[in-house]
Amino acid sequence: MSQPIRALIFDVFGTLVDWHGGVVREVRAHLAPLGIEVDAPAFALAWRNQYQPAMDEVRRGLIPFGKLDVLHRRNLDVVLRELGLDARVDEATRQSLNQAWHRLDAWPEVPAALARLRQRFVLAPCSNGHIALMVNLARRNGLRWDAVLGAEIARDYKPTPVVYQAAAAALDLPREQVMMVAAHSWDLAAAARAGLRTAFIARPNEHGPGVGETRAQVPVDYEAADLAALADTLGC
Amino acid sequence: MSQPIRALIFDVFGTLVDWHGGVVREVRAHLAPLGIEVDAPAFALAWRNQYQPAMDEVRRGLIPFGKLDVLHRRNLDVVLRELGLDARVDEATRQSLNQAWHRLDAWPEVPAALARLRQRFVLAPCSNGHIALMVNLARRNGLRWDAVLGAEIARDYKPTPVVYQAAAAALDLPREQVMMVAAHSWDLAAAARAGLRTAFIARPNEHGPGVGETRAQVPVDYEAADLAALADTLGC
Repeated sequence: MSQPIRALIFDVFGTLVDWHGGVVREVRAHLAPLGIEVDAPAFALAWRNQYQPAMDEVRRGLIPFGKLDVLHRRNLDVVLRELGLDARVDEATRQSLNQAWHRLDAWPEVPAALARLRQRFVLAPCSNGHIALMVNLARRNGLRWDAVLGAEIARDYKPTPVVYQAAAAALDLPREQVMMVAAHSWDLAAAARAGLRTAFIARPNEHGPGVGETRAQVPVDYEAADLAALADTLGC
Repeated sequence: MSQPIRALIFDVFGTLVDWHGGVVREVRAHLAPLGIEVDAPAFALAWRNQYQPAMDEVRRGLIPFGKLDVLHRRNLDVVLRELGLDARVDEATRQSLNQAWHRLDAWPEVPAALARLRQRFVLAPCSNGHIALMVNLARRNGLRWDAVLGAEIARDYKPTPVVYQAAAAALDLPREQVMMVAAHSWDLAAAARAGLRTAFIARPNEHGPGVGETRAQVPVDYEAADLAALADTLGC
């Protein structure tokens, strides 16, 4: 563990951006004009809950790798069907609502903390989201990346080891000089198994108020209350 | 041609950074301490001239895709051998000199012009250089990219059409909404054949004083004296 950390790679949904709050806002904005009242927080959770099973089909080789927009859209259709809304939500609304994931806001401390971290480290997202989605979230929130890495580069989804390893390889760095930063223990456990360093960020409200991981459930190299605290710890 | 341009992708060596001046500087700095006097501009040209044949072996499927560092190193060894310097340049010097391509300076107007262009367009390099090389050049010169695209994403080298097409696909844009910006007619001709828009930038000193393309030799959508002039033309 004595090698210096040269690059930080980041989970994005939940760790850097508030997907739950953003999707709740977009669900309301899209369905209210159609006269549809739903429990928007529950809708957001149901949508997100389709995420891992859909990616799992890719990880197991049952369906080819696709951009996250495609999986999100398939999952949206499932949720609308399960809520009995299939006939009431038109195609244009579905397409626009599916873009909600491109219009999420960063947690408040993130843009400034990333700017501090970038003084000392190479920074890149390592998300299951595709490149265009990362570009839109970064431009919306003023996040400055050195490169966009993650699932689309590796053609597979986290927690498959190749996703983390492909990120380190793209930066031409030994894995132990790259640290994965995430708010999810499953992600960090996989990154550690793949040979990377790990930092846990607490996001106690990720899935709505009071629902999110507050402590790492696995051994990690660093653990911080938010990204600014991680920058403090790393001396940035 | 009526679709709006949404993204600009850039050739880097020659178009954005002065490879000739930088390599000349590095050749002198590395060989003088060994007591070796060479014609550094000629050395730089000889090194660069090995570039297309080496990539051609990849394009023709004779050798697998590799990071540009690997091709540069192979080519450096060829040049040293041809100049009768094989026995006089040690391994450590070769490794350090090979990194010259990571330490090139941007043409003077480039950083500010890119910042202007980024107000209106998504920006990414589309170089035959690999991701880590692009990251180092961008950090050295203060270039702000939205993503790093190019050969490593496509696993092939320009002017193979897939390299341009993979860049547009990664940005989730139709090819006609993406414009390739380069100082080389061969690059722009290939980008146009692949379905992209094109902009030519004059770099009359790319290969040394007075040696570089001053006008596009092929039809292009835009032609500009430098990147600031292109930003002017595009109304940025």
